[in-house]
Amino acid sequence: MILAIDVGGTKMAAGLVAGDGTVTASARVPTPQGADATTLWKTLVELIEPLTEGVKGVEGVGVGCGGPMAWPDGEVSPLNMPGWRGFPLRARLAGRFPGSPVRLHNDAICLAAAEHWKGAGQGSADMLGMVVSTGVGGGLILNGRLINGGTGNAGHIGHVVVEPDGGPRCGCGGHGCLEAIARGPALTAWAVEQGWEPKHPGTGVYLEDRAVTARALAADARAGDPVAVRAMRRAGRALGIAIASATHLCDLDLVTIGGGLSQAGVPLFGPLEEALREHARVEFARRVKVMPASLGQEAGLIGAAALLLAGESYWTERR
Amino acid sequence: MILAIDVGGTKMAAGLVAGDGTVTASARVPTPQGADATTLWKTLVELIEPLTEGVKGVEGVGVGCGGPMAWPDGEVSPLNMPGWRGFPLRARLAGRFPGSPVRLHNDAICLAAAEHWKGAGQGSADMLGMVVSTGVGGGLILNGRLINGGTGNAGHIGHVVVEPDGGPRCGCGGHGCLEAIARGPALTAWAVEQGWEPKHPGTGVYLEDRAVTARALAADARAGDPVAVRAMRRAGRALGIAIASATHLCDLDLVTIGGGLSQAGVPLFGPLEEALREHARVEFARRVKVMPASLGQEAGLIGAAALLLAGESYWTERR
Repeated sequence: MILAIDVGGTKMAAGLVAGDGTVTASARVPTPQGADATTLWKTLVELIEPLTEGVKGVEGVGVGCGGPMAWPDGEVSPLNMPGWRGFPLRARLAGRFPGSPVRLHNDAICLAAAEHWKGAGQGSADMLGMVVSTGVGGGLILNGRLINGGTGNAGHIGHVVVEPDGGPRCGCGGHGCLEAIARGPALTAWAVEQGWEPKHPGTGVYLEDRAVTARALAADARAGDPVAVRAMRRAGRALGIAIASATHLCDLDLVTIGGGLSQAGVPLFGPLEEALREHARVEFARRVKVMPASLGQEAGLIGAAALLLAGESYWTERR
Repeated sequence: MILAIDVGGTKMAAGLVAGDGTVTASARVPTPQGADATTLWKTLVELIEPLTEGVKGVEGVGVGCGGPMAWPDGEVSPLNMPGWRGFPLRARLAGRFPGSPVRLHNDAICLAAAEHWKGAGQGSADMLGMVVSTGVGGGLILNGRLINGGTGNAGHIGHVVVEPDGGPRCGCGGHGCLEAIARGPALTAWAVEQGWEPKHPGTGVYLEDRAVTARALAADARAGDPVAVRAMRRAGRALGIAIASATHLCDLDLVTIGGGLSQAGVPLFGPLEEALREHARVEFARRVKVMPASLGQEAGLIGAAALLLAGESYWTERR
């Protein structure tokens, strides 16, 4: 039995995962906002303790965590958890489970591994697993193996440049990055700036709650609100252009898209496909397919467990 | 001793390569223009025969060839050699050297392997080896291993999108691709359109000869001709943007640039660095270095030989 952990700025989740990838037990808790390092660690320990209490021998611990991080050492500094800066998460967990291997990777990379192992990417040799949510990230699987890159950050499609001249400023300090256009908050901010007021009934929208807002924007786009349609179109095209670039560079079969915005439907995926087909014209690139991720909420745990349960595909030590 | 072969639209080259990567003998011949399949094959045979005559046992044959091709089968249809369409180059060579392994890959990928094995990329774990010439191509090395991609085309940075809106048409059918802006002929055509007339003394320029023309444009840019400077700046910035995207996506240490345009000096590399640093802002991406390729004319042969002599790094069977 593997203990899988998924740590993000909004929630922490943990679960027990069997050899076949089934999550047999799980729990989650909101990440305490503005908490210091000790409080964050205590919250995590209190989450995993009841799960592992009755278990005879945790065979390994797999962790997905928000970046950036020092990889593979597992010292984490998640962007949205200021209390952890260089926090030795891997070492702390190793101390708690002596004798068990602990493997930690970026959360977006774990999601890609999960989709390849048990989700929409099964059977693909060369894929990019994307997440489009508060940020835009991803993980690369090439020739059936997870690619780490020099610092464990390969697959980071959010900073592929899609609007080099006059594109919006990005949180990274650059401009015109995919993330600066297609992440949920950027998308809704742009729509509000263009005069959008959430009006689709029944979504109970609060502009302060960014996840709800992006959902409302998608609903309004489906209902035909012209600004919402334009906002989704802008993000969809940016995604299609970045995917075309990634397909040419990495010779991909498949791109899976998870995260909140992957629920947006035709208003996002229509323009995405249109821009992708416009730009992915070299013969080998035309085969690429784009599919929604299929694993839902448990994907993060399944991917973290895959680092151990299918390590021959999803874990490579640095050469 | 390995027989290495490098087949392109302009020339065919062949050489004997020792285990340490030293080219001990070589020959080259212009590729007969407009020739049919048989003539092309005969030209190649006449090139390799004198080289291998005295050699006791060719241990293997490594081939770099212009794409596209069916890989790893080695049926080639080089863009600039219309006489070969689906030509079974690998099988033909295997028939000529019975018992010897024959490995064939895209020429740009062989150049990347060469630079990583014996050139400017030695010691880099994660690099992109680029060629900027009549076309723009490349090969990816990640975690010290050559990446093939699903069809043997990984590294094809020429079709990364750098000017999505209103960018120039590309030979691939798309628009705004790096290649459409930065390949030599596109660069000089743009300059001529802007009123450039080659004037740098001593370059003996003929506008019909594209290689000479790109060299003359670079020389004029170094001499301060304003249109030539703008042309190089435009190509350099496009290269920098594409390299930033590739660095984020593949978490690279190093990009090497070979091919004729890599000789253009500061007028190209200045704007390249400027655009790269403007866009490669995420912490892990800042470490990337751009260097000229170092192997020169023999790189193609060395890379083709590397497919066999260092196969553990540069050759992977499909899973």
